[in-house]
Amino acid sequence: EADIAAGEETYQGVCRNCHGPKAQGIASYPRLSDKDADYLTERLERYRDGEKIGPNSMLMIPHAKELSDADIANLAGYITTAFD
Amino acid sequence: EADIAAGEETYQGVCRNCHGPKAQGIASYPRLSDKDADYLTERLERYRDGEKIGPNSMLMIPHAKELSDADIANLAGYITTAFD
Repeated sequence: EADIAAGEETYQGVCRNCHGPKAQGIASYPRLSDKDADYLTERLERYRDGEKIGPNSMLMIPHAKELSDADIANLAGYITTAFD
Repeated sequence: EADIAAGEETYQGVCRNCHGPKAQGIASYPRLSDKDADYLTERLERYRDGEKIGPNSMLMIPHAKELSDADIANLAGYITTAFD
């Protein structure tokens, strides 16, 4: 069961700086509020493994490395419910 | 002796996204082109150690953790000479 409050704290502490306060996306940093939990989880896990996926991998990999499985689940839970 | 080309590659690959292509600074992300090598080296080392210094520590710490001593020297060498 995702801890939405913990997800919010992580998101608003780090992710919002590029993805925006409402996960709406800014410039080349993609919108997340339209993504589902499986997509978000899979991307974060791949970045965490150091996989170069998109153009911003060099930015995402160091941040994703900080995340535990619980952090990822909480983020996905927050992003997929907070901005409907 | 700093490897300026290596410093450029690191800077333009990651740091520019917040500090700007000419290290001029963007919004709350500080200008670096007016800083000296000692300042840049000390800040990066403290962030690398996980020290919360400024308002963007949560963004800087994960990035600084990726850097070796050589990376830091090369970045400082590049930033202090490329934008005079």
